[in-house]
Amino acid sequence: MKLVIANKNYSSWSMRPWVLLKHYGIAFEEEVILFDHFQPGSQFSAQAGQISPTARVPVLVEDDGFTTWDSLAIAERVADLHPEHAVWPRESKARARARSLAATMHSGFGDLRRLCPMNIDCDLRAVGQRLLATEPGLRADLARLEALWTPELQAHGGPYLMGSAFGAVDAYFAPVAMRLTRYGLPLSGACAAYVQTLETTPAVQAWVADALAEKRFVPDDEPYRASADEPAR
Amino acid sequence: MKLVIANKNYSSWSMRPWVLLKHYGIAFEEEVILFDHFQPGSQFSAQAGQISPTARVPVLVEDDGFTTWDSLAIAERVADLHPEHAVWPRESKARARARSLAATMHSGFGDLRRLCPMNIDCDLRAVGQRLLATEPGLRADLARLEALWTPELQAHGGPYLMGSAFGAVDAYFAPVAMRLTRYGLPLSGACAAYVQTLETTPAVQAWVADALAEKRFVPDDEPYRASADEPAR
Repeated sequence: MKLVIANKNYSSWSMRPWVLLKHYGIAFEEEVILFDHFQPGSQFSAQAGQISPTARVPVLVEDDGFTTWDSLAIAERVADLHPEHAVWPRESKARARARSLAATMHSGFGDLRRLCPMNIDCDLRAVGQRLLATEPGLRADLARLEALWTPELQAHGGPYLMGSAFGAVDAYFAPVAMRLTRYGLPLSGACAAYVQTLETTPAVQAWVADALAEKRFVPDDEPYRASADEPAR
Repeated sequence: MKLVIANKNYSSWSMRPWVLLKHYGIAFEEEVILFDHFQPGSQFSAQAGQISPTARVPVLVEDDGFTTWDSLAIAERVADLHPEHAVWPRESKARARARSLAATMHSGFGDLRRLCPMNIDCDLRAVGQRLLATEPGLRADLARLEALWTPELQAHGGPYLMGSAFGAVDAYFAPVAMRLTRYGLPLSGACAAYVQTLETTPAVQAWVADALAEKRFVPDDEPYRASADEPAR
């Protein structure tokens, strides 16, 4: 199978299924469609529109050409195709809870996503401090993250969200960990430890290494820098 | 089990799991938390926050108190608890495709959702005509709907999206049908027939009947009327 993604430095939605497949050692090719912009005439949208009616990535393309688009639907497809992996927890209620958490990320956290776009190769801690002071919506999103994570970390004992094994829900929050560390956004004890666990998960580290090597500056994804050499404002 | 929802006239997210449970004849109690507003001090948010960390509805509460929040996670929970119903298609690729479509709705169609909020008891066709003329984003969302629906209606032969049986993906698009008919937004042949099929599905009609009987005007959900008696502008 092939996973079509965008820039590893910026594309939080691409990161999720890539990290999931990588974690389980499921073989896949990778095809990158580079971001340019989302205005009319976007080359990215034109290319992505060839493989998905949403004109977005990620898209999973199976060997017979069958496509699954959307990161959450891809996680479910991987779970269907690979029942040997606990993509979602085996226990029924833990599975439901993992899906509630992933779905909440899928449609929510608008302020965190808008104000703190993923940018793995950039130190944005000064920006993060300023945003924390001026953006109540961002503070509310961080409080919501703690409210979502803390009961699960307590109930299942960590280090991952639903217990000892990494799964789709952790892949879902891996790009959130990238934002939290790059923007220096603070979470309390158990949640901070979970972020650290995500950061040191080998599949996540593999994505980060590729992102750091990428070095393709995209102005539309950079609200805080004018070039890769300029410090973030 | 109990399904916690908001106003049937306005709450598109509540409609999805309600219609799904109703269609399969799965017994459930219903609890309504009425919308007031989403500003600080919202009674709705305070009450919804008692049962879900997202402070949103719908929430499925099982008899032992276990909660599943988010409409998509609830659909998966219902599928897990009731394998006798084809909540998602039995065939593996149709199932993946249904999930791609539902997930696209879950995180997308921002212009359709923002400009045409669900308002079942109101004739908004004049508003819809004006929006169609002035809002390219709305036209793009309608084109995207057609691009998503048409291949599935052709491949599976209708009348529902994945063939002869109503399922979670159709429940997902039922509130879209409400918007399309209330705002008079046109779709082409096969898609228009699908909207009509959704409108005449008994579980959808049951929700609509309740919505019409509700008669609770909420200013925050009414961008186009100042009161229930005033025609939409």
